[in-house]
Amino acid sequence: MHLVVIGGVAAGLTAASRARRLDRDMKITVLEKGPMISYGACGMPYWIEGRVDRQEDLVTYTPEFFRQERKIDVLVDTPVTEILHSRRRVRVETSDPHADREIAYDRLIIATGSTPRELPIPGANLPHCFHAHTWNHFGRIQDFLLDQKPQSAVVIGAGFVGLEMAEALHSRGLAVTVVERGEHALRWQEDWITKAVRDRLAEFRIPLHTGKEVREIHERGVDDIPADMVVLATGTRPVTDLAAKAGIRLGKADAIAVDEHLQSSVTGIYAAGDCAETFHRVSNAADWIPLGTTANKMGLIAGANAAGHRERFPGVVGTSIVRVCGLTVATTGLSLKAARQNGFQPVSVCIESYSRPRYFDGVPIHVELVADRNTRRLLGAAVVGDKHVEGRVNVVATALSAGTVVDDFLFTDLCYAPPYATVWDPVLVAARQLLHRLEER
Amino acid sequence: MHLVVIGGVAAGLTAASRARRLDRDMKITVLEKGPMISYGACGMPYWIEGRVDRQEDLVTYTPEFFRQERKIDVLVDTPVTEILHSRRRVRVETSDPHADREIAYDRLIIATGSTPRELPIPGANLPHCFHAHTWNHFGRIQDFLLDQKPQSAVVIGAGFVGLEMAEALHSRGLAVTVVERGEHALRWQEDWITKAVRDRLAEFRIPLHTGKEVREIHERGVDDIPADMVVLATGTRPVTDLAAKAGIRLGKADAIAVDEHLQSSVTGIYAAGDCAETFHRVSNAADWIPLGTTANKMGLIAGANAAGHRERFPGVVGTSIVRVCGLTVATTGLSLKAARQNGFQPVSVCIESYSRPRYFDGVPIHVELVADRNTRRLLGAAVVGDKHVEGRVNVVATALSAGTVVDDFLFTDLCYAPPYATVWDPVLVAARQLLHRLEER
Repeated sequence: MHLVVIGGVAAGLTAASRARRLDRDMKITVLEKGPMISYGACGMPYWIEGRVDRQEDLVTYTPEFFRQERKIDVLVDTPVTEILHSRRRVRVETSDPHADREIAYDRLIIATGSTPRELPIPGANLPHCFHAHTWNHFGRIQDFLLDQKPQSAVVIGAGFVGLEMAEALHSRGLAVTVVERGEHALRWQEDWITKAVRDRLAEFRIPLHTGKEVREIHERGVDDIPADMVVLATGTRPVTDLAAKAGIRLGKADAIAVDEHLQSSVTGIYAAGDCAETFHRVSNAADWIPLGTTANKMGLIAGANAAGHRERFPGVVGTSIVRVCGLTVATTGLSLKAARQNGFQPVSVCIESYSRPRYFDGVPIHVELVADRNTRRLLGAAVVGDKHVEGRVNVVATALSAGTVVDDFLFTDLCYAPPYATVWDPVLVAARQLLHRLEER
Repeated sequence: MHLVVIGGVAAGLTAASRARRLDRDMKITVLEKGPMISYGACGMPYWIEGRVDRQEDLVTYTPEFFRQERKIDVLVDTPVTEILHSRRRVRVETSDPHADREIAYDRLIIATGSTPRELPIPGANLPHCFHAHTWNHFGRIQDFLLDQKPQSAVVIGAGFVGLEMAEALHSRGLAVTVVERGEHALRWQEDWITKAVRDRLAEFRIPLHTGKEVREIHERGVDDIPADMVVLATGTRPVTDLAAKAGIRLGKADAIAVDEHLQSSVTGIYAAGDCAETFHRVSNAADWIPLGTTANKMGLIAGANAAGHRERFPGVVGTSIVRVCGLTVATTGLSLKAARQNGFQPVSVCIESYSRPRYFDGVPIHVELVADRNTRRLLGAAVVGDKHVEGRVNVVATALSAGTVVDDFLFTDLCYAPPYATVWDPVLVAARQLLHRLEER
């Protein structure tokens, strides 16, 4: 029995490791097209920022570790060019003249990840334009910063990668401008969050232009904004060309469609991570939310099932968090708009409350809580503040997974002592307000 | 319709306020035996420590606020001496010669709180011995510190009040020793937590003597330990003399027995807060866990039901947190021992993991996770570390409320970005280990 995994970053390596844990004898091979495996792409902006010394510090495991400790063959610089499922083989490109060009498999896991969406912006291929997604992308950005010493940058896209890169480049002394085509920063798509982000960026002298479509990138900047370098952070798409060519069905956002066991439309071929659909537990529908945490979790399930077990991936609730110049913006579940689009009749409140008593460095944090008017079920939350945000959004994320109604959520037994919280935690203050709102009519 | 509430701290005032919100016309009177209402007793150690300037800073609301803003009469220094339920009256003591000695009610809420357990230790009434529970207790401790300038103290009891007071007195420059009768510090009753607490106290030169029964307090110390002052922190008991005399049934730990609507055994009389039983959602049994957060939550329900509504208190999972000289110890649900005592077949793991990447000030934190072997249901957790603990215990607390099984808990969609967490949050690392343990046989 031979398990082949295409992709050696988060989902792929987790899947391979899980399969090995459950089956000591199976042959397992991981094929990675790039030079590195097992790196934390999320940490790269902090290497650019200078907080992490060397790019290699963000690598968790080496191919040698997998070979020796887990008996998993990991081949880097080995792109798969075709899946020949009728013959249960993948075709690979390799610089080794003695290596096989075809590798046979019994089970296949596709974990090919995502890639930056190519935009039809004139000039996007100029040498001072950079994506910020893979190991090599960040390496090129670092080289450019060191060699060319740019003084200014435009970041196109106000999603979390764009905002993290804006902060990183600002830390390196560049004058940074962020340009966003949509009306909002970040996925939640709410005015109050966009305002909070804009205000914070302004404190760092980083202008945020929303609703601004870029017409052209040129050697001296973007449209009328001068810049020595440009970061393209306009989102990603799943890498599914191999899968599509093999006749595997694509689903939401053209990610690989999977069932709850993460099996694709082709029996024996599983998909996990950014290249695959996920299931949203609140909207109760397929969704595509590429994130490292989800990739790891999906890897566990794909690995187990490829090893002959039968485990179910319960899905996600869409939790995310980002630091923007010291401000933390965290969201989970559905925003008011997303809830409406998904057929709910949402009600929301947004409150300000102290994260802790002021005598324990408490700061004001804002909590928006969304619930469904009919079922009173909690649908989502956004939590924003300078500190003490992550634990609060995680509490809501946990409650969302359980399908909790607001009436019950109010009674969540959260910890309290003055060094850590207020007697009524901000998320519960929001829940009380939301109940009052629900009782209004 | 007249609602009388006995007790004006957490549960009583919350109940009165909720009743007012639901019924604009009801007459509401709160009778408080002490001089102050609405104070945060949990903050008092930090006033002693010097972090809070004035004791009054820990008062949230005044009687005037309640009278003017909420049309609630609040009488301080007005102890109730008897409940005459056959006549629907309470008898009060008052220094006002013109005031009524009896007050009629239609509905009654008992929120008399808890009081330090009196120990049969010879010398416990000496003038250098102090309880640390009420407004007046802490006032006396502060006066003694300022007037007598003690150089050393013994704290009897290694529960959270004892440990907080030990730290507070240490901050004031006293040489402090903690003496505990049992084998363990804190409620969780596990060796590894007792060791963590003992080690941390030792760094602050605060010896912790466990398994040591005090024989005698004398003017110069406790047994063979010299001390200029002694703090008695050996636990509390519910204040239920009024209730018992009125024929109201007592339950767990002699707290007032209540149904899920927080009604006592006598129709029309409700109880909330430290004087009442609560319901433990994990053990599925009555319990007595006196805490300010729970008191507030119970107050909401008692107030609503006394105002003619019919709301249900879902209970608690027993979450608590304490800071011990910079170490955070937080627990929720059932410990291994408590789980066994409650008829479960518990399995547990204890892992160490980083709270965040090291380049974002991550620190090692320890997570113990307990689950039931048969049902795989999560039963409890302890989380210990220098930082980033509270959010993690709250996630488990939220999952416990929902009756989550470990297999599902592993897939909780917690937020991830390097400034806040690791890709696998420590509680999920623990869940993975626990699943491996459950799969072992």
